[in-house]
Amino acid sequence: MNVAGKPLRTIWPEPDGNAVRIIDQTLLPHQFATVRLASCDEAAHAIRTMQVRGAPLIGATAAYGLALALRADSSDTGLRTAAAALLATRPTAVNLRWALDRVCAAVARLPEAQRFPVAWAEAGALCEEDVANNRALGEHGCRLLAELASRRPPGTRLNILTHCNAGWLATVDLGTALAPVYLAHDRGIPVHVWVDETRPRNQGAALTAWELGQHGVPHTVIADNAGGHLMQHRQVDCVIVGTDRVAANGDVANKIGTYLKALAAHDCGIPFYVALPGPTLDWSLADGAMIPVEERSAREVTHLRGADAAGTVVEVRVTPPDSAAANPAFDVTPARLVTAFITERGVCPASPSGLRGLYPAADPAHASTPVSVHP
Amino acid sequence: MNVAGKPLRTIWPEPDGNAVRIIDQTLLPHQFATVRLASCDEAAHAIRTMQVRGAPLIGATAAYGLALALRADSSDTGLRTAAAALLATRPTAVNLRWALDRVCAAVARLPEAQRFPVAWAEAGALCEEDVANNRALGEHGCRLLAELASRRPPGTRLNILTHCNAGWLATVDLGTALAPVYLAHDRGIPVHVWVDETRPRNQGAALTAWELGQHGVPHTVIADNAGGHLMQHRQVDCVIVGTDRVAANGDVANKIGTYLKALAAHDCGIPFYVALPGPTLDWSLADGAMIPVEERSAREVTHLRGADAAGTVVEVRVTPPDSAAANPAFDVTPARLVTAFITERGVCPASPSGLRGLYPAADPAHASTPVSVHP
Repeated sequence: MNVAGKPLRTIWPEPDGNAVRIIDQTLLPHQFATVRLASCDEAAHAIRTMQVRGAPLIGATAAYGLALALRADSSDTGLRTAAAALLATRPTAVNLRWALDRVCAAVARLPEAQRFPVAWAEAGALCEEDVANNRALGEHGCRLLAELASRRPPGTRLNILTHCNAGWLATVDLGTALAPVYLAHDRGIPVHVWVDETRPRNQGAALTAWELGQHGVPHTVIADNAGGHLMQHRQVDCVIVGTDRVAANGDVANKIGTYLKALAAHDCGIPFYVALPGPTLDWSLADGAMIPVEERSAREVTHLRGADAAGTVVEVRVTPPDSAAANPAFDVTPARLVTAFITERGVCPASPSGLRGLYPAADPAHASTPVSVHP
Repeated sequence: MNVAGKPLRTIWPEPDGNAVRIIDQTLLPHQFATVRLASCDEAAHAIRTMQVRGAPLIGATAAYGLALALRADSSDTGLRTAAAALLATRPTAVNLRWALDRVCAAVARLPEAQRFPVAWAEAGALCEEDVANNRALGEHGCRLLAELASRRPPGTRLNILTHCNAGWLATVDLGTALAPVYLAHDRGIPVHVWVDETRPRNQGAALTAWELGQHGVPHTVIADNAGGHLMQHRQVDCVIVGTDRVAANGDVANKIGTYLKALAAHDCGIPFYVALPGPTLDWSLADGAMIPVEERSAREVTHLRGADAAGTVVEVRVTPPDSAAANPAFDVTPARLVTAFITERGVCPASPSGLRGLYPAADPAHASTPVSVHP
């Protein structure tokens, strides 16, 4: 999508073919800077420190990280060690495991000398597929938005609420939850996005607001607390969120607070959609209770970064020095609260049969027991 | 309650009898400072800028503000003008109107010379009643907590979640939602409070955490997004919140985001209590849809204050400069999601008959059409 009028992706290979470059998302919206990742360690660090985040982008970065590891050490041991290190960076997004599995499977039976170029190409292919998936998902979602917009009074905007960032910054490009919004906006459907600020890391206030603004999409930032009130007052036509992992029964892991918005949408009779690219489906888990939920540092709750009056980014403490804090980073929304999944293969009910209708078990990428090459 | 081991109230008359003193709550938890209010204008300013906040404390400050107005101008016109100015400071809390009505009624038929001392005494009596109400409410709530604690495994803590600040800082002393918690803690029931940070003004992170810490009550600050997840995982035994206004049917206006917590508690089968002192009941409104909801400055969402590494309080911007923000300050929780009201007269169902059982219409303070002396 556009940044200052110029198209950009979140991750791209360097011209020398020995590194990738990413946007350092921890600095947004106050500073725009890119970072070169030339090793597996640097890729793992970028994921762990959330310079890159969002389930699809974590997967893409891990794929490149594994390729970079093979450039340094293409042995079986090197492969296993790197895959394990990358897998340990973040626990909740299943795309991470999926991407590592895929690169491992592509190189496992190759001679060592061929492993780096093949892994590099596989990471690139995975990125292209992400963009293609998001475009297909966006088309299906855009039809839903067009339908909702057609029911509104002429001259009014369609109001979409989203939580966290599942825009292009969470993917290689275009986004998942925001792909339908970008397509609708580009086609002249008048859309307006309510952006949950998404405490404690403020991915909504910092990333979603920034990318919507850069692309010219009307939006309004709100405290996470406000969404229910807006829904009660019919100021929300639908909710669309992304997801870090969907279990076989349709339960949805996503950023902490998603469950609360799903409850409010359900209570108010407002459609609650989850944008779900295939790689985010985890058939190996029967239900959401089995999805690991990352507990992150208490400091993300007690401290916060922003720009002071001079534009300098500073960190401030918002709690008393002696107060403890807890920081579960994700929650699980039960499938019963999800109106439908929007996928690259179409729209389906949030149920095992709904998912199996689009992703048959015969499809090797969607069997229940994926072959894991890494430990 | 205690501050640094010394008992304190939120508002108290100055020894000269010509002013009151308050804690400037906009500076907490980073600085502790008090402010002298010597005029109606200063009282109105303190309410408007939220140096004092919380429905009962707004009422108490307005009562003293009206008395101070009568010291300067004790005419009927002076009384009406001052009451109107104070009433306009904040729209949602009904205690404001209730307190002004009460002081007006006490002085309206008096000769002008007697008005200031009587109003001053009435404001003081209203403060004493607030504390007495909170203590009675706390006793009823403490019995509920003791009962819940008795069902827990020995040696474990009772986990109470609260939203915003309905502690002693929101009242003259002791608090509403936190009164049962303080009494339970002081009596040796092992309690632990999950403190919603309560964006955008962070009354939980700044005020509730501070006052619980000063009194030695174990607590943990969480993002507003986290409460649903904690309830799903049975880490919350009950929710207790305060309220700014309860309609005749039991609908509850409280800090934005309360509705989301009530939905989660209902979905998870966890008791959701609202601490309700009598003056917060508004019999004149049939249901919650009639309660005015204050829309506050967008800047409270886009900017935030905290302490930097040197301890200096600075304001930082968290959103992109060009992004709009919206800031509804309250929401309305339907009575159907409220397990019970905890009042100074006992515990009752969140229904018209439940409320009328404790507050009969024959009681002049609780008739449906209160006499309003001010315009």
